[in-house]
Amino acid sequence: MNDLSEEPTARDGEPEASSGHGLSAQFIETVTRALEHDDLATAKSLAAPLHYSDLGDLLETLDIEQRAKLIEQIRDDFDPVVLTELDDTVREQVIEQLGMKEVAEAVAEMDSDDAIFVVGELDEHEQDALLASLPAEDRTVIREGLAYEEGTAGRLMQREVVALPEAMTVGEALDFLREDEDLPADFYDVILVDPRHFPVGTVPLSRVVVARRPIALNTLIAKDMKTVPVNMDQEEVAFLFRQRDFTSAPVVDEAGRLVGVITIDDIVDVIDEEHEEDIMRLAGVGEGDNLFTAVMGTVRSRFTWLLTYVVCAFAAASVIRLFQGSISEMVALAILMPIVAAMGGTASVQTLTVAVRAIAMKELTPANALRNVGKEVVVAFLNGMVFAVLVGVIAAIWFDNAALGGVIGLAIVLNLLVAGLYGSIMPVLMQRIGLDPAVASSAFATAITDIFGFFVFLGLATLILL
Amino acid sequence: MNDLSEEPTARDGEPEASSGHGLSAQFIETVTRALEHDDLATAKSLAAPLHYSDLGDLLETLDIEQRAKLIEQIRDDFDPVVLTELDDTVREQVIEQLGMKEVAEAVAEMDSDDAIFVVGELDEHEQDALLASLPAEDRTVIREGLAYEEGTAGRLMQREVVALPEAMTVGEALDFLREDEDLPADFYDVILVDPRHFPVGTVPLSRVVVARRPIALNTLIAKDMKTVPVNMDQEEVAFLFRQRDFTSAPVVDEAGRLVGVITIDDIVDVIDEEHEEDIMRLAGVGEGDNLFTAVMGTVRSRFTWLLTYVVCAFAAASVIRLFQGSISEMVALAILMPIVAAMGGTASVQTLTVAVRAIAMKELTPANALRNVGKEVVVAFLNGMVFAVLVGVIAAIWFDNAALGGVIGLAIVLNLLVAGLYGSIMPVLMQRIGLDPAVASSAFATAITDIFGFFVFLGLATLILL
Repeated sequence: MNDLSEEPTARDGEPEASSGHGLSAQFIETVTRALEHDDLATAKSLAAPLHYSDLGDLLETLDIEQRAKLIEQIRDDFDPVVLTELDDTVREQVIEQLGMKEVAEAVAEMDSDDAIFVVGELDEHEQDALLASLPAEDRTVIREGLAYEEGTAGRLMQREVVALPEAMTVGEALDFLREDEDLPADFYDVILVDPRHFPVGTVPLSRVVVARRPIALNTLIAKDMKTVPVNMDQEEVAFLFRQRDFTSAPVVDEAGRLVGVITIDDIVDVIDEEHEEDIMRLAGVGEGDNLFTAVMGTVRSRFTWLLTYVVCAFAAASVIRLFQGSISEMVALAILMPIVAAMGGTASVQTLTVAVRAIAMKELTPANALRNVGKEVVVAFLNGMVFAVLVGVIAAIWFDNAALGGVIGLAIVLNLLVAGLYGSIMPVLMQRIGLDPAVASSAFATAITDIFGFFVFLGLATLILL
Repeated sequence: MNDLSEEPTARDGEPEASSGHGLSAQFIETVTRALEHDDLATAKSLAAPLHYSDLGDLLETLDIEQRAKLIEQIRDDFDPVVLTELDDTVREQVIEQLGMKEVAEAVAEMDSDDAIFVVGELDEHEQDALLASLPAEDRTVIREGLAYEEGTAGRLMQREVVALPEAMTVGEALDFLREDEDLPADFYDVILVDPRHFPVGTVPLSRVVVARRPIALNTLIAKDMKTVPVNMDQEEVAFLFRQRDFTSAPVVDEAGRLVGVITIDDIVDVIDEEHEEDIMRLAGVGEGDNLFTAVMGTVRSRFTWLLTYVVCAFAAASVIRLFQGSISEMVALAILMPIVAAMGGTASVQTLTVAVRAIAMKELTPANALRNVGKEVVVAFLNGMVFAVLVGVIAAIWFDNAALGGVIGLAIVLNLLVAGLYGSIMPVLMQRIGLDPAVASSAFATAITDIFGFFVFLGLATLILL
């Protein structure tokens, strides 16, 4: 991974792979066409010089058969880091095709955090097979890493740490690092430790290179180092990095001893992952339901949510049934009731999304949750009033019935209030009882405002109009 | 900002500010209580030692009056970087309170990217006032920065670049950097330039510190440097950093000359911002609608979306009206029709969200868009069949009408197919015509499946049952 060569340049007559905006559509098409026509030499010559992340993207874009063909062509100089760039489903396929022995060799070459990530994604049976083919030392490191729970700092950290005694000077550090053969591929900070191997501070490399040789390293320590306990949730770790603009943070065991380091490039992946979780849960999509999931996996994951929702929909239908007599008498109610429900649904999804996002960014906390509820109620009331008049007038004219306009207007105000309350309270409650706030998903928000919207509109209509 | 002192520790008897998980609720409460009781000395003693990002969070959590009180207490040693940590609305308030002269002094102390960011958020009138009070040199740099469009690399970059001639050795570089007084606060890479000031490669600092003095810098160049044009969209820049695990990227003008550098800490903010955009647009929430927006701002931003949606809802109502005769004849149709609409809505939001996320991560491209549509159609069909049977049987029993069960089953299959098509095609189309894919928002997806769901269910019922 310490390859210092420059990027290969595109040859004449071949499309350039990447414009800095990822792979170009034209490039992907050329590779696809070559694979389709079994022009394997061309496919190989195009794919082999790619950066590992571009190769990962290319493999993800191809369909199953073409992917298998391409892997076969490039397996001899397959860069193992590509595995860390692939989606779970695609990775499994590639690992199967490469065979356990080759994957083991690949894993042995990786930095410990990458290796643990790749092995951790395998099922238990495969893990054992792979670990068995590894050198004993690598095996121990990976087993230790896997012992930490997924989603914790321990799982995320890299074991290769550049730790120096706190008493060193800049000059001594430079001399020492120049001799050390066993450094990680890239690092951004030096971690100073006391004789017990407790971290005492991090020194950004930019301070090391600008300081004169006799300067003591511990005078260059960055403000407010924070140590990360091995069992800290990765979301918390990401928050810390964001807050403090860290590039590395030392990870410590329960005794406070330095056991690893987390670097900013891992944090970017965590941030992406946490974002994905939020957006997917809000939409009622299972984790790991993405472009690469096989059809049956997607069917199963969507099914669960649809099933939950169909139960809610039957609840809404039952509410309507309560008022079937009213609908028979005045069919306008059936025509207008979806408007009340739909406005409530939109408003609750809006409120909910703002709250979920604010919790993720630690802007919405128990300290200001109540104030936010108050604000959302006022917003709901004001917009409710405007739309009550707007929809009410249109409905009154449409069905030539002023009272009907009044009823739908009132129902809209009340339903928007419920939407505002649900959207601002539920995510905070979810968080309080230890669930992901995004689980108070759009589908539930919509279901609640459907049920309440039908009830209040049809109920008021029955009371007032009939 | 080059403060090398260690973090202040909490004093006895006072709650510790931060557990590494952000500010503790207890700490915020203590500050709030002190401000409420006008115990300003305590509030000041608690807030003053905070890290700027924690102080930013504290200010955001307080309400308007308490915030103003606290600012008044800490204005004398107010760390200007706090301004970059605040939400727009809160920042405006703080700037107003501090006064233009003090803000100008603060801006003059910042790195150029932070300064441009803060000034760029002001309105034109305030910008002029602030720039007028700046030293001429800073004014020029900021004016140049503001000339780049918001959301581009030029706006994001920092002017302070550590650029060295490509022919330098490690030893010469160290000597040179030790002499240079004008370096940025922190940097992660050295950028090598040719005599025309064209970047030829980036050298990670970790390679500089481990290399011996006589080694030529240009043998340490990281694989595949990518230069970023000043007008590149920040989303593209973020993609590049993610893909290549960059810590810095050189920014070049149209001639290819080095004009600045973008670093990984800025990219983390861009990733958060882009994600916020996606999640908010999907939910139909305007940009800048968050916890800190004043009530009227939120009312206005939500209003637009609700208005769009109410138009869609009236379209759905008109569809129902077409079939009002059928509903009068068979009120069960009114009871069941929301089920068809709701299932379609949930399914389209699911499909849409997966596609929007995949486009953001560059997984869904024109090259595989068609394959994804195919997959979503199959998924919709399979889930549609399952729910057709499930809902159909329940409906048939509920209303003792087998044909009604058949009709709702068929309507569900067709509506889920529409949901799958909309969710997988619309975001790609939006992207193709240059719009944000997330604009094909949940609200529209729901509207389409409402309209189609009502139409197909009531239409089929009218044809078959009546």
